[in-house]
Amino acid sequence: MSLHKFIQQALSPWHLKGGPDSDIVMSSRIRYARNLNRYSFPTVAGSEELQNVLNQAKTNVMPHEYGDVGRLSMLEMSDLKNIEKRVLMEKQLISPNLAGSEKSSAVLLSDEENISLMVNEEDHFRLQCLFPGFQLTEALAAANQMDDILENHLEYAYDEEKGYLTSCPTNVGTGMRASVMMHLPALIMSGRMNTIISAINQLGIAVRGIYGEGSEAQGNVFQVSNQLTLGKSEEDIVDDLQSVVYELIQKEREMRGAMLDTSRVQLEDRVWRSYGILSHSRVIQSAEAASCLSDVRLGIDLGFIDGLSQSILSEVMILMQPGFLQQYANEALEPKERDIRRATLIRERVKLEKI
Amino acid sequence: MSLHKFIQQALSPWHLKGGPDSDIVMSSRIRYARNLNRYSFPTVAGSEELQNVLNQAKTNVMPHEYGDVGRLSMLEMSDLKNIEKRVLMEKQLISPNLAGSEKSSAVLLSDEENISLMVNEEDHFRLQCLFPGFQLTEALAAANQMDDILENHLEYAYDEEKGYLTSCPTNVGTGMRASVMMHLPALIMSGRMNTIISAINQLGIAVRGIYGEGSEAQGNVFQVSNQLTLGKSEEDIVDDLQSVVYELIQKEREMRGAMLDTSRVQLEDRVWRSYGILSHSRVIQSAEAASCLSDVRLGIDLGFIDGLSQSILSEVMILMQPGFLQQYANEALEPKERDIRRATLIRERVKLEKI
Repeated sequence: MSLHKFIQQALSPWHLKGGPDSDIVMSSRIRYARNLNRYSFPTVAGSEELQNVLNQAKTNVMPHEYGDVGRLSMLEMSDLKNIEKRVLMEKQLISPNLAGSEKSSAVLLSDEENISLMVNEEDHFRLQCLFPGFQLTEALAAANQMDDILENHLEYAYDEEKGYLTSCPTNVGTGMRASVMMHLPALIMSGRMNTIISAINQLGIAVRGIYGEGSEAQGNVFQVSNQLTLGKSEEDIVDDLQSVVYELIQKEREMRGAMLDTSRVQLEDRVWRSYGILSHSRVIQSAEAASCLSDVRLGIDLGFIDGLSQSILSEVMILMQPGFLQQYANEALEPKERDIRRATLIRERVKLEKI
Repeated sequence: MSLHKFIQQALSPWHLKGGPDSDIVMSSRIRYARNLNRYSFPTVAGSEELQNVLNQAKTNVMPHEYGDVGRLSMLEMSDLKNIEKRVLMEKQLISPNLAGSEKSSAVLLSDEENISLMVNEEDHFRLQCLFPGFQLTEALAAANQMDDILENHLEYAYDEEKGYLTSCPTNVGTGMRASVMMHLPALIMSGRMNTIISAINQLGIAVRGIYGEGSEAQGNVFQVSNQLTLGKSEEDIVDDLQSVVYELIQKEREMRGAMLDTSRVQLEDRVWRSYGILSHSRVIQSAEAASCLSDVRLGIDLGFIDGLSQSILSEVMILMQPGFLQQYANEALEPKERDIRRATLIRERVKLEKI
């Protein structure tokens, strides 16, 4: 069982590789929703049916090689402690939904953690392919390759007219959700983000804060994804999303440039003060830490800070979540204790890489 | 001319020696107001009279040895640039009043800068003796020794009944102002300081912020001094002041202890965040810097921070004033530029002593 490997490190191996436009786009993701023919959707299936779906994953999915990806390791939810499920969720290898389910659900993971296949989540199978930086096309190609192999071994619920059938009607058709994680601190600082979000929404593209609750975007990290899954090909959906992402990259870069021109020293001050807080605080809540991490990441991207990796933001955003903190502490922690542990962990982490 | 020596270093040599209760009392001071018989007070004197007083300082004060103190160096205000006067003022070796005067005024300073004798300030002579830590009795003894030697060479304006005659009636009698500089962060944090100040005022003792304007006490540094100069001996005035200072020390220590007991980690957090800001900011105003310096000084006194001297607070509070900053930059600076220089200077200073 390779559970230990998956929950030990906050940052997945694929994340360390870097990618195009990684000063702004942290990662690209393609997710496919797939269901088996002749089985009820998991939301309404009985326990026997769910078990049969899980068995199909064991016999028809697990044994195969998936090209460069190799084989997949399977983690059954019923074998995991709550804290372990929480860590997988914080790493976004499983959904909160799957973490909450008890029976006959599982996730299959590649060694690099760039491929995750959830079993008996909202759909029988949820495949996700992750790439560092802005690589939606590459992620789509990888997802298609995986999907083709899977399709050789599984009988998908597919309708000639509607496409892939899914538990929730919003996924019917391609069953695809394409998304990128973007770091947009300059657009936030400029106060333009809300206007931009409204405009993008009208194109059928969703923008939401990936960390934090409600409309808050902790760490200025946003997920930009397609809303429509029906009536267009996967390639067209990805093309449309890419155009919007290109434009956001452009706008964020312009704003960073403008800020450098008009208030460089204030920007440096902000970045270094945030670094000073992260490297010295003894108690820190996640919202403040996220805000400081965003500043520090911007400082790295603008060349103010040397000796810290770009991935510090992604990594610490995961590392400082309650599950990881408790996993690290090896005990349950009250919120106040978590704030202390978080500060300790961050201090160590931001100092570690300093040259 | 030893001007260079006096304006080069922010911290006077006497300050580095440390003294009793220096976790709370930064320094002790005795000031005597003295005037010459047969000359009008400087506030009303003509220029010829003022020049005669200055000549007496040159012929009757300068040539003598003053025990351990040695000889005094004389700086005439008319020889100094505004920026140089400002630096002496920020070091509290001369008063704002003397710095503003043009003609026939001067200051005589000992090598250690623990003795300052202003000529033609509000009174003909203003003698001040400074000691590190809580050493009012020692400062009084030193002031008396200086005063006795001066009295051998000068004819003081003295009335058998009223005592020493002074330009302002509030100084008549002993002509003495005894004061201590105290760092009282815990009393401020506890919100008790205003009540305490009112109670102390009723004892004829003044408490005021030494830096900052109005009632604000930048850096939580307070000057505690006698208000009465008449009807009591110097020793009795100092005794009364000492009792009040002892009580303040006690209260501040109790409050520090209570805070350590109830919220140690929050206190550490506050101290280290302030250190993080001082060691990383690129732009900082004096009020924020003072507040952070106060936290850092408290952290040194409580043993949270190693490798930084207690004197960092006194030193940087002087170093970061406009005069010193401009002296250091060797040019006039706009307020915005000062905020940048201040941050640079503080970063260098707080890192320098780090072990």
